Amino acid sequence: MYIRGNITLETMDFKGADILSTKGLIRADLDVILERAKFFLPVAKKEKSSQILDGKVLAALFYEPSTRTRLSFETAMLRLGGKCISVVGMDSSSLAKGETLHDTAKVIENFADVIAVRHPQPGSAKEVADAASIPVINGGDGAGEHPTQALLDVFTMIEERKKLDGMTVALVGDLRYGRTVHSLSYLLSHFKVNLLLVSPDQLKMPDEIIKYLKKMNVHFSEMEKLDVAMKNAQVIYSTRVQKERFVNQDEYERFKHYYILTRDEIEKNNASVTIMHPLPRVGEISIDVDALPGAAYFRQVQNGVALRMALLSLVLGAKV
Amino acid sequence: MYIRGNITLETMDFKGADILSTKGLIRADLDVILERAKFFLPVAKKEKSSQILDGKVLAALFYEPSTRTRLSFETAMLRLGGKCISVVGMDSSSLAKGETLHDTAKVIENFADVIAVRHPQPGSAKEVADAASIPVINGGDGAGEHPTQALLDVFTMIEERKKLDGMTVALVGDLRYGRTVHSLSYLLSHFKVNLLLVSPDQLKMPDEIIKYLKKMNVHFSEMEKLDVAMKNAQVIYSTRVQKERFVNQDEYERFKHYYILTRDEIEKNNASVTIMHPLPRVGEISIDVDALPGAAYFRQVQNGVALRMALLSLVLGAKV
Amino acid sequence: MYIRGNITLETMDFKGADILSTKGLIRADLDVILERAKFFLPVAKKEKSSQILDGKVLAALFYEPSTRTRLSFETAMLRLGGKCISVVGMDSSSLAKGETLHDTAKVIENFADVIAVRHPQPGSAKEVADAASIPVINGGDGAGEHPTQALLDVFTMIEERKKLDGMTVALVGDLRYGRTVHSLSYLLSHFKVNLLLVSPDQLKMPDEIIKYLKKMNVHFSEMEKLDVAMKNAQVIYSTRVQKERFVNQDEYERFKHYYILTRDEIEKNNASVTIMHPLPRVGEISIDVDALPGAAYFRQVQNGVALRMALLSLVLGAKV
Repeated sequence: MYIRGNITLETMDFKGADILSTKGLIRADLDVILERAKFFLPVAKKEKSSQILDGKVLAALFYEPSTRTRLSFETAMLRLGGKCISVVGMDSSSLAKGETLHDTAKVIENFADVIAVRHPQPGSAKEVADAASIPVINGGDGAGEHPTQALLDVFTMIEERKKLDGMTVALVGDLRYGRTVHSLSYLLSHFKVNLLLVSPDQLKMPDEIIKYLKKMNVHFSEMEKLDVAMKNAQVIYSTRVQKERFVNQDEYERFKHYYILTRDEIEKNNASVTIMHPLPRVGEISIDVDALPGAAYFRQVQNGVALRMALLSLVLGAKV
Repeated sequence: MYIRGNITLETMDFKGADILSTKGLIRADLDVILERAKFFLPVAKKEKSSQILDGKVLAALFYEPSTRTRLSFETAMLRLGGKCISVVGMDSSSLAKGETLHDTAKVIENFADVIAVRHPQPGSAKEVADAASIPVINGGDGAGEHPTQALLDVFTMIEERKKLDGMTVALVGDLRYGRTVHSLSYLLSHFKVNLLLVSPDQLKMPDEIIKYLKKMNVHFSEMEKLDVAMKNAQVIYSTRVQKERFVNQDEYERFKHYYILTRDEIEKNNASVTIMHPLPRVGEISIDVDALPGAAYFRQVQNGVALRMALLSLVLGAKV
Repeated sequence: MYIRGNITLETMDFKGADILSTKGLIRADLDVILERAKFFLPVAKKEKSSQILDGKVLAALFYEPSTRTRLSFETAMLRLGGKCISVVGMDSSSLAKGETLHDTAKVIENFADVIAVRHPQPGSAKEVADAASIPVINGGDGAGEHPTQALLDVFTMIEERKKLDGMTVALVGDLRYGRTVHSLSYLLSHFKVNLLLVSPDQLKMPDEIIKYLKKMNVHFSEMEKLDVAMKNAQVIYSTRVQKERFVNQDEYERFKHYYILTRDEIEKNNASVTIMHPLPRVGEISIDVDALPGAAYFRQVQNGVALRMALLSLVLGAKV
C-alpha cells in the first residue's frame, strides 16, 4: 500500500490513500478494511441501500479486458450512490495518440474523485498514482499485483469459516504465474494459517514469495499431489492455468487440467471444505461442485463488491 | 416467455420473470405489458419523470453490436431512476478467457438486479436465464428471438391505429431470415388481424411460422407483389434484407432493394397507411416518406423505450 | 453556431441551440457562455455540487476515439445531476449496418435530451444537428471544427490572465492541420489580441483563416522562429503535430519536435508566461515545465468540464 503525504497507516485513516499492493499492509489495516467490507455486505447483497458516495465520481480505466473487475468496481460505486466514467480497451484511449500514463492521470484527476486502473504493464498503477492527486486503486497491473482480489479472497475466507487463524488453506494450480495467489500469500502471512502450496513442479510458487513466507514465519508446505489438501484443508483455493503466460502451448495443454475438483472427490474426502476460485474457471472445478454448500466462488464475487465498496469509501474519506 | 419457480402467468405477476420469447405469451400477458407501456409513454416522451426503479441496477450484456437496442434499454432504466452497467462486444468480456455463459450469469447476478442480454447464438438468452437468479430479458439472440422488438411493434401498431383487431397488416421483405417478423408473427396471432406476407419466393416465411399461423386460425395470404398490400393494408411493416445472412452476395444484391416504399406510391394508393420498420433501413423506405403522417418508424423507437420501461418495471416487481 | 427555429442569438437564449462551430458566434454570445462557465467552475473543481440537469440524459456519440473529450462531457453531465448513454467507436454502432447519420440522429433523439457527437467526417455534426430535434454539440468533426475546445481555450486564457484584450497570444506548431488553432483563431478575433502565428513554412495557417483575421482587423504576424513569442507573449499555445494528417512519414518526423518548450528557456525569457496545450502532448512541452506556475494545460482540462457544463445547461435551457 502506498500512502501519500501525511496520511499514514498508523492513524488508520485511509482518506486519499492509493491501494496499489498488498505488500505493505499491516494487520491493523486489514482489520479496518475487512470490518468496512462486512459493514457494506448487506448493500452488496441488495438488502440495503446507501448514498454514502453521493456526488462522487469513479473513473474506471481498464486498458485490458476485465469485465468482472470493472463491473464490480462500477457496481460498488453505483450502489453507494456514486457515479462512473469508464474507459475500456487500449484503442479507445488517448494512449493511441502517444500520451504517457502520467499525463493521462493528470487529465483524469480533473474528472473523477477516485481512479480504478487495470493495465497490462506491471508498475503502471503506481505510475498513475504517482501522477494523480486523487486516490488510485490498482485493479490489476499485468504480472504485478491485484490487491482487491486478494483482499476479497481473505474477506471471503473469513466470511465462510468465521476466522482465518488456525485454518489450513490450500493454494492449488498455477502458483508460478498466478498473480492472484502471490498477492494472496502476502495477505495470508498476517494470519496464523497453515499453507499448502499445491502445484506441478514447473508451476511452483516463486522463490521471492517462498522467502517472504519463511521470513514471516508462515507455516507452509509445497506438494505436487492434491490428496493431502483434499483431506486436510478447510479452504481449497483453485486457480486457472493462464494460457496467455505460456510460450509453449503444448506445456499449457499439459497443465491446464492438472487438478480438477469434482463433487465425488470432495464429498468423499472433505464434504465441508470451502472451495474458492478467482474466476473465470475453465474446467478446474466441475459444474456439479456448484451445488455443494462449500462452493464459495460465486459468493466471492458478491464479497468482492462489498470489499470494493469498503476501499472506495475509505480512500474517499466517507464515514459510516 | 419463461416463468421461474412459482411465478405463473395466470396471476399476471411478472415479478422475477424472464422475457425470452414471444411464443408462450397469452393475450392477457400482452394486455398487462401493453397497458404498462402506455402508462410509461409520457416518461419515454420526456414529458414526465419517474423514480420507480431507484436503487436498481441493469446489466446490459451486449455480445454483438446493437447500439439501438442497448441505448433503448439503458434509457428506459435511467429514466425510471435506475442505473446501468454495460458490457459491449465479445472481446471485452470474460468469454475471451473461455468462461461459459452459465458462469458469466452467476457472476453478473451479484452485480445487477436485472439482465438484458444480446448474443449472436440462438438459445443463449435462455442459457443466461437458466443460470441467473435475477430476471433476464432477451435483447435478441442471433437467428432466435427478439421479443422486445416484437412487443414494441405491436404496441406501436395499437398506438398508431388505436386497435389491432380487424386490421390488415402487411409484413414486407425478408420474411425468411428476419427474426423480427418471426417474433412479431407469434404475437399478431393473438389478434384478429389479416396478415399479408409479402416476399420474394426465396425469402418466404418459414414453414414453422406458417404452420403456427394456421393452427392459430390467423387469416393470412402469401404474395410476391407489393400492390395488394399497398392498396389494402392499414399497416405496412417493411424490413431490411440482412446482408449478414446471405452466403451468396450476388443473391443479396438481387434482393436488397426488392421492395422500396416511396412517397409517391403511398400517397397515390394509401395515403393514411402506417409505415413501420425495425431499423436500420438501408434504402427500403425513401427519405421523403419520413414527412408522411403515417411514417411511424421513428415513433417506434420512442415506443420501444416505453415498452422496455414496462418490462423492466414488471420483472422487477415495481408497482405503478 | 447553428440556431434552430425561432431561437436567435440576439435574445441570448441558447435553449435548443446546436453548438457546431465557433464561426458564427458574436462577442455577446461568448460573454454569456464564459460567464456561465465561470459560474460552474466550482462544480468542475468538485468544491460545489449541482443538480441543475436532474432528469436530463446526454447521448455521447463518439465515432472515433477521444477519451478526454468524451469523459469531459460525461463528467460535466454527471456533476450537474444528469445521466449519460454512450456509444464508443464505429464498430459498435448501427453504422456498421449501413445506417445514415440522419437516421441515427432521428433514433437518438428519442433517447436523449442532448447529443455530443465526435466523428471523423467534417460536416457530420451539422448532419446530426439537421436531423435531430434536440440540441447537438460538436465534439470535433475531423478536420472540421472543435468548438468546445476553442471555447475552453479562451475561457482558460481569461482565467489565467484575468483578461484577453491587450494580450499577446502565440499559436505554436502545426497551424495547417490543427483544427484546434483554426477554431481558436475565429474566437480570438472577438478580442483585441496580438496574435503570433509560429510554424514551419510547410505548416502555416491556411489562407482562409488569414483572410478572416485580416477582415476582422486582428493584429497578427506570421513567423518561423519561436524567439519573439518566447520573449513577448503572455500566452503560448503549443500544439501537437498530428501524425495522422501526414501522408509522408519522413515529413512528420522532421516536424514533430520542431518546437520544444523547456523549463530553462521559459524561466530565462518569460518566467510568468502562460503555457497551454490541447493535449495529448507528445514531447512539445518538457515534463519539467509542469512545475511552473504558468503551466496551465492541466487546468485547461478542468476548465473544459466547466465550459461543457455551461454549454449543456444553456442548450437545455436550465436557469442558474
